[in-house]
Amino acid sequence: MRLALVKALKAQTKQEVPVGAIIIKDGKVVARAHNKRESTQIATAHAELLVIEKACAKLKSWRLEGCVLYVTLEPCAMCTGATILSRVDGIVYGASDPKGGCMGTVMDLTQIKAFNHQPWVISGILKEECGQLLTSFFKNKRKQG
Amino acid sequence: MRLALVKALKAQTKQEVPVGAIIIKDGKVVARAHNKRESTQIATAHAELLVIEKACAKLKSWRLEGCVLYVTLEPCAMCTGATILSRVDGIVYGASDPKGGCMGTVMDLTQIKAFNHQPWVISGILKEECGQLLTSFFKNKRKQG
Repeated sequence: MRLALVKALKAQTKQEVPVGAIIIKDGKVVARAHNKRESTQIATAHAELLVIEKACAKLKSWRLEGCVLYVTLEPCAMCTGATILSRVDGIVYGASDPKGGCMGTVMDLTQIKAFNHQPWVISGILKEECGQLLTSFFKNKRKQG
Repeated sequence: MRLALVKALKAQTKQEVPVGAIIIKDGKVVARAHNKRESTQIATAHAELLVIEKACAKLKSWRLEGCVLYVTLEPCAMCTGATILSRVDGIVYGASDPKGGCMGTVMDLTQIKAFNHQPWVISGILKEECGQLLTSFFKNKRKQG
């Protein structure tokens, strides 16, 4: 999670909402990414989606079995869907997202039996650090605005 | 929807699950895409996600206000999430997806008030043609397997 936080800090230096993600397999980092929505102007450029795409490219497979995704903020519907489609074993996230979190807060899409995969989820790891980064970012943005 | 079907047919010729999508703005086609999961080996390479990314790139904005997405199959959780994030006005889809459809079949993510956008949805347009394409594809695949 500390590595995901490093990526989130990098996003912040680029005026992006500070969310970072990494994917681990067999104890090694397979891919890392941070949110890039503003710099790319692509609506889907969330850290989790980018890190899943990088991991698929690196492992040359759309199936990410044996992989665990670490992300500083609870994934949204799109990113939760991507974890299900890519069959990651599980997800570890930091801060909860009351506005969009789909791994337990607004809803929990990881436990829908109709979908063909149900990854495990661990939440709240380094949640203060992960959340504080977002709170400070938006506070500064409001000041500037 | 006929243009989306043309893209779905193109996917089929490449041994991809035949799903096609287009985005329209002001009566003009902004982007078109088909499912590319097998050829790219990227779990997220669904027609809808690809067409949204193309439209953002073309319009140089992550906000796709004024745009309508046409897709041959009901979007999954990831793709429905992407329509919400990109703020498309609405979605027109063909066949329903009992295994993953998140615009009314397994669930309806477009009407969640916690999310910051609720696109409109029209379903069942050319559903026989859209569904038949998928049924034939999987029937042939089973024969080959």
